[in-house]
Amino acid sequence: MASRLYSRCLALRSSVWVSAQGSRHISQAASVKKTLEESEYDGPHMKTAVPGPVSLALQKQLGEIQNVQSLNFFCDYEESKGNYLVDVDGNRMLDVYTQIASIPIGYNHPALVKVVTDPHNLSAFVNRPALGMLPPRMFPEKLLDGLLSVAPKGFKRVQTMACGSCANENAYKAIFIWYRTKQRGHSNATPEEMTTSVINQAPGCPELSILSFMGGFHGRTMGCLSTTHTKAIQKLDVPSFDWPMAPFPKLRYPLSQYERENAQEEKRCLEEVEDLIVKWGEKGKPVAGVVIEPIQAEGGDNYASADFFRKLRAIAKKHGSAFLVDEVQTGGGSTGLFWAHQHWGLDDPADIVSFSKKLLTGGYFYKDEFEPDKPMRIFNTWMGDPTRNMFLSEVLKVMRAENLMDQVKRTGHVMLNGLYDLQARYPHLLSKARGLGTFCAIDVKDEDTRNKLILKARNKGVVLGGCGTQSIRFRPALVFKEHHAQLFLNIFNDALADMK
Amino acid sequence: MASRLYSRCLALRSSVWVSAQGSRHISQAASVKKTLEESEYDGPHMKTAVPGPVSLALQKQLGEIQNVQSLNFFCDYEESKGNYLVDVDGNRMLDVYTQIASIPIGYNHPALVKVVTDPHNLSAFVNRPALGMLPPRMFPEKLLDGLLSVAPKGFKRVQTMACGSCANENAYKAIFIWYRTKQRGHSNATPEEMTTSVINQAPGCPELSILSFMGGFHGRTMGCLSTTHTKAIQKLDVPSFDWPMAPFPKLRYPLSQYERENAQEEKRCLEEVEDLIVKWGEKGKPVAGVVIEPIQAEGGDNYASADFFRKLRAIAKKHGSAFLVDEVQTGGGSTGLFWAHQHWGLDDPADIVSFSKKLLTGGYFYKDEFEPDKPMRIFNTWMGDPTRNMFLSEVLKVMRAENLMDQVKRTGHVMLNGLYDLQARYPHLLSKARGLGTFCAIDVKDEDTRNKLILKARNKGVVLGGCGTQSIRFRPALVFKEHHAQLFLNIFNDALADMK
Repeated sequence: MASRLYSRCLALRSSVWVSAQGSRHISQAASVKKTLEESEYDGPHMKTAVPGPVSLALQKQLGEIQNVQSLNFFCDYEESKGNYLVDVDGNRMLDVYTQIASIPIGYNHPALVKVVTDPHNLSAFVNRPALGMLPPRMFPEKLLDGLLSVAPKGFKRVQTMACGSCANENAYKAIFIWYRTKQRGHSNATPEEMTTSVINQAPGCPELSILSFMGGFHGRTMGCLSTTHTKAIQKLDVPSFDWPMAPFPKLRYPLSQYERENAQEEKRCLEEVEDLIVKWGEKGKPVAGVVIEPIQAEGGDNYASADFFRKLRAIAKKHGSAFLVDEVQTGGGSTGLFWAHQHWGLDDPADIVSFSKKLLTGGYFYKDEFEPDKPMRIFNTWMGDPTRNMFLSEVLKVMRAENLMDQVKRTGHVMLNGLYDLQARYPHLLSKARGLGTFCAIDVKDEDTRNKLILKARNKGVVLGGCGTQSIRFRPALVFKEHHAQLFLNIFNDALADMK
Repeated sequence: MASRLYSRCLALRSSVWVSAQGSRHISQAASVKKTLEESEYDGPHMKTAVPGPVSLALQKQLGEIQNVQSLNFFCDYEESKGNYLVDVDGNRMLDVYTQIASIPIGYNHPALVKVVTDPHNLSAFVNRPALGMLPPRMFPEKLLDGLLSVAPKGFKRVQTMACGSCANENAYKAIFIWYRTKQRGHSNATPEEMTTSVINQAPGCPELSILSFMGGFHGRTMGCLSTTHTKAIQKLDVPSFDWPMAPFPKLRYPLSQYERENAQEEKRCLEEVEDLIVKWGEKGKPVAGVVIEPIQAEGGDNYASADFFRKLRAIAKKHGSAFLVDEVQTGGGSTGLFWAHQHWGLDDPADIVSFSKKLLTGGYFYKDEFEPDKPMRIFNTWMGDPTRNMFLSEVLKVMRAENLMDQVKRTGHVMLNGLYDLQARYPHLLSKARGLGTFCAIDVKDEDTRNKLILKARNKGVVLGGCGTQSIRFRPALVFKEHHAQLFLNIFNDALADMK
């Protein structure tokens, strides 16, 4: 993938974006590019600093009830449309973060509104079922229409869950059950295993582990958290399983200039993976599975090459460990392919693929052998929410009808090319522009400057999010078009020009 | 509570229920008791054995996609009404299990239908926010209207989460953070703590523990699962934290006959709790918190006295451990009080109270000192779902308007008295009838007979669920009235009469 990125970089350097040189004529610039079929707003429109007075009053009220330190501002979701998020003070912002990458086709898309107003769907919203015991009539059809219609190659089975953490937690459990079944040679546990499992002891609760990567993020429940290694504040004070953590390649940019060094770095990481698998096996805590994101998102939009993932997959297989690809943030189309791991071009890329966010429901695809052969092993009360599957079916229809995967590629060209230009223009502020599709990021010189830049852009009408220690991640919806990208780049340029 | 139960037992022995002596005239018997304002069905109506042919065909289809061994039947939620669950074969059943105790006021309640059809609410369903960063305008108001209006005494703060497991996982994390902050004497971690936390090592990831009870159920994600001790199949093959597990009192029934023995049993369990706290402290894995259900539900509807809980709360306090009351199944009114722990009559019953199911959103109430003083420590993308809070507000309005807590008490009298009569009539099959409000249970002579009895009752038009090794738990909605209870008892009597 690293070399792929580089060739795109070359292809795009001479592309369409012409920088607006700090232009403040935002709405005008945007409206020229707008196509007629769109009903969304013309551009950002700012009335107050953000958060404005109404947000601040609500924040004070909510602060009496819970921690509000991570709160950005309060939203008026009724007024939000397409790529525009409107806040309670009437500020209208171009959303390039989309609720932490979880809004697939923009706000209040008519196709999604119809899901709620269609009287046939009413009962699904009103009566949430215990899906594992008493599913609604339409559930299999909605799985076929929805999740299974976009299943990665080779996957025919899927388990829904309520969120991304629950998806990974249950995928880990499926891996542990698969691993022990394989070790036993059959699925029937001994009476000793049955008894000890209830009291947290081996052999019923075996010492197995999941290998993860520095900079990886897989969720915040305690199994997931033992595989999450991004920020201290997410893990501090919480007990952890003693599971191995390998280094993730730290690629040097521009990639073209450091091909040899980067290949060596990837080799070093893979050797470490293999060492850790052996070491944890010797420790009596065999690595039952390896979990990795195709792009480390929360950790800073870190990439590795397709060659790295190909070799990693082979190492997992060689050692009898399951290979779990976490597509919670990368899945759903924004990299230009529906699943980011499809960029690897492998025939058999994974044993389990987990998802959430843009897929609107959590869950995971799994190979047949990862299905426990007994009931209630992977189970909870809700196991997802069928209304989420109804929304997803409509999202996929819109994606097909509007050919949004092609849109993502076109918009991604504009975005990445624009970011290259900006980092050339502001080399003291920006570096490492990178991306696949619209899933783009750029580094800012330090954390403090990054945070200031995000706030400055917000007050100019663009919502952005950070990741890693000093990166900004761009996570627009799939309906983010070329003219939105240009608008974003203009405003971002404006914000950069303002930075002292 | 044990003695409370006993006095209710005496008070109810001579109550209203007159057994129907195996009568099959179910609909007739029920319709007599029906009040005019009800729009629900007259009674069960069975067309096929359950699962019927349509369910079986759908089950086959879903079986190609995921494990369906825990599946009961497919539902027609559109046709379901009030206390009646209709399946896809047109069978209409009185629901005394309510989606594992998670339907508060019956199916398709008009007040809940209105939440979906109200155009003002549309955008809340269509645009799911990242609640911790970008909440909707109405969020504080809905918390005040909803969760905080029923907060247990002494609680002013609440955190929502998507489900029960996530509620407990995050409550445990809040406890660990609180405990370490207390140990440190302040909230600023050392650089060593910050660095080691990211790589799963102490001191950043300390060896702390949560003490739980044999027979307790607190969820299935890996932190929760280390405190869950019900069935082997839920834990087998999954690694566990080395956390202590105390015995839960095994009370002998009838309680009146075994007062001395039961008091002794509770004393033994409390001594063991104190021993374990000391022992795990010495092991270097201090007990940061104690978690317990007011009634062990999944574990078999196991009760302990208010005196037991009072002393347990004191032991936790004495040792500096947080006291977390898990009301995921017991909360929401079905015990005759909104929270089951209110039956203890304590001024300061808990530090944290977790909930889900009938509250429609997961989450937990917490004392001020359990709020981390930094952002993003308790956080995830969705952190619940604001539409769930909108439904909850309406549920609470209905509960108040229809005085459903009193209804629960009246219906509970009928149910428990009926169960006493049935166990007197079928002593070779039934024992240990017990309950608070409509939260009732009874033991069946063995697991196999229990399972057969549940299926028999289902084919006669009553949906029931098991718990523990050989119990049946009764979990009707709060709108389950006296005539529903009588109907249920008639059919249950019928099923029992059929058992050979």
